[in-house]
Amino acid sequence: MALDPVFASLPAKLKREAGENPTPHLELEAMVSFCRGVLSVISAIVPAVKINSAYFEKYHADGVAAYDGLLAEATEKGLIVIGDIKRGDVGHTAEMYADAHLGAASTTANAAFHFADAVTINGYFGLDGVKPFVDSARQNGQGLFVLVRTSNKSAALIQDVVTSDGRKVHEIVGSEVERWAVELETIGRSGYSLIGAVVATRNAADAAQLRATMPRSIFLVPGYGAQGGKADDFSQYFGEGGMGAIIAAGRSVIFAHAEPVYRDKHGDDWKKCVENACRDFVADIGRVAFGAR
Amino acid sequence: MALDPVFASLPAKLKREAGENPTPHLELEAMVSFCRGVLSVISAIVPAVKINSAYFEKYHADGVAAYDGLLAEATEKGLIVIGDIKRGDVGHTAEMYADAHLGAASTTANAAFHFADAVTINGYFGLDGVKPFVDSARQNGQGLFVLVRTSNKSAALIQDVVTSDGRKVHEIVGSEVERWAVELETIGRSGYSLIGAVVATRNAADAAQLRATMPRSIFLVPGYGAQGGKADDFSQYFGEGGMGAIIAAGRSVIFAHAEPVYRDKHGDDWKKCVENACRDFVADIGRVAFGAR
Repeated sequence: MALDPVFASLPAKLKREAGENPTPHLELEAMVSFCRGVLSVISAIVPAVKINSAYFEKYHADGVAAYDGLLAEATEKGLIVIGDIKRGDVGHTAEMYADAHLGAASTTANAAFHFADAVTINGYFGLDGVKPFVDSARQNGQGLFVLVRTSNKSAALIQDVVTSDGRKVHEIVGSEVERWAVELETIGRSGYSLIGAVVATRNAADAAQLRATMPRSIFLVPGYGAQGGKADDFSQYFGEGGMGAIIAAGRSVIFAHAEPVYRDKHGDDWKKCVENACRDFVADIGRVAFGAR
Repeated sequence: MALDPVFASLPAKLKREAGENPTPHLELEAMVSFCRGVLSVISAIVPAVKINSAYFEKYHADGVAAYDGLLAEATEKGLIVIGDIKRGDVGHTAEMYADAHLGAASTTANAAFHFADAVTINGYFGLDGVKPFVDSARQNGQGLFVLVRTSNKSAALIQDVVTSDGRKVHEIVGSEVERWAVELETIGRSGYSLIGAVVATRNAADAAQLRATMPRSIFLVPGYGAQGGKADDFSQYFGEGGMGAIIAAGRSVIFAHAEPVYRDKHGDDWKKCVENACRDFVADIGRVAFGAR
């Protein structure tokens, strides 16, 4: 599940409580209240949640405090928490981002901070930019997902450019991910690496190619539902036994109160809408991941 | 000038004031005090400062508040302020990042927030990821710098891969930047676009190629000093009349108190060290930008 909340799309009740022309502070309060509600519902249904930092960063320091609090709350509820931060830089700066987002919660210095179990990062810098995140993740039992192929239309003009050896740019990034997974000795008992990949292409051939290129990486795949993806589009992402992929549904579940199919049944009970949309999502994906293929 | 402060590298006096085993809060206070000192010194010498968000994000919400405050302080001191945030995402999330970092300070909703004059962003997503930043920048008189070629060693394995038409991946990104600059009608009276580029290669041929590929983009070039760059390495970045490039010195200036050449002369007066290192940097770059070439 993906938590990308925007104030304007919240259930009417929460927006009303924030008042007319709410301040950023009141907007943020409503967002946090909404997110806590969503977490309490989905934590009984899905194993993991991806929380997108951008939607909180918009509220500057208060937003970052709220994001931190939601990481803690999701962890308390037993969810694996993915911080969707898409950070990336080189050298010392990459270390700072790794410290900020994959720190060890147990140290005294970090006592006041909260951390995700894994984060998304941008791999355009190559290994130098990725290594500090790998080091932190290894030390603290966390993970990361490197952006390999994004879902947006214009991505093709960069990520699908064909290189002189016939591979696409995103395949080059993917084979780097595989090389890092092996050379940095990041493969765990499950056979999977702590270095995963964000792969969001809707091109089945590309998806299959990337699955073969990175057999050791867990794929984080956004785009179910609101971004137009249907369960069958995701079948290429799963490895043996339905393993190796985390499919994320976002708006189609968290804003289910706006979908007639749920609203007509549950009225103003937006949590019931979220719950049922989440169950439908899990059933739909489960059919593809574990069903007859 | 680039502000990438780390507590461990601060002048001894500031570290002493923070006490032994300082809490993150006390570390951050010392960092802010240091940064304010640096800004007061350099604002009389250089036109612009790049403040790196990662070094503050490490301190979570308090750090982000400090970063916000430093943006405001640098602006008050008359500096053009570049937020080195290297954010990047697609669609709605990119809009959120643009709102967070290139918002309009004049609106009621944003009254409590501060914004940079320009930010660095990651262009791996292509135009969809860049467009929201362009829209915000255009609306609020700001700018952006798209990462084209980074300075780190491993960047070559992705950014220098040769494509089927003989260009390197970073040239593809560079020619996308040029296309966006023109097609989105972002060229101002100066002849330069609000879409700049981060170009940090030390390969003179690549630098010249990128300068020719993106004649309308201001280049933001890190790496002077501590990262090993000398002024002559940067000559390829300037356009006619020494225009078109912002060279950033970081640690070699802000931590000049640790350089024997300055320390031996100014002793514990770390601001004098910063001032003189900054003047030397400007003279050195000026010689290359405006001198006989």
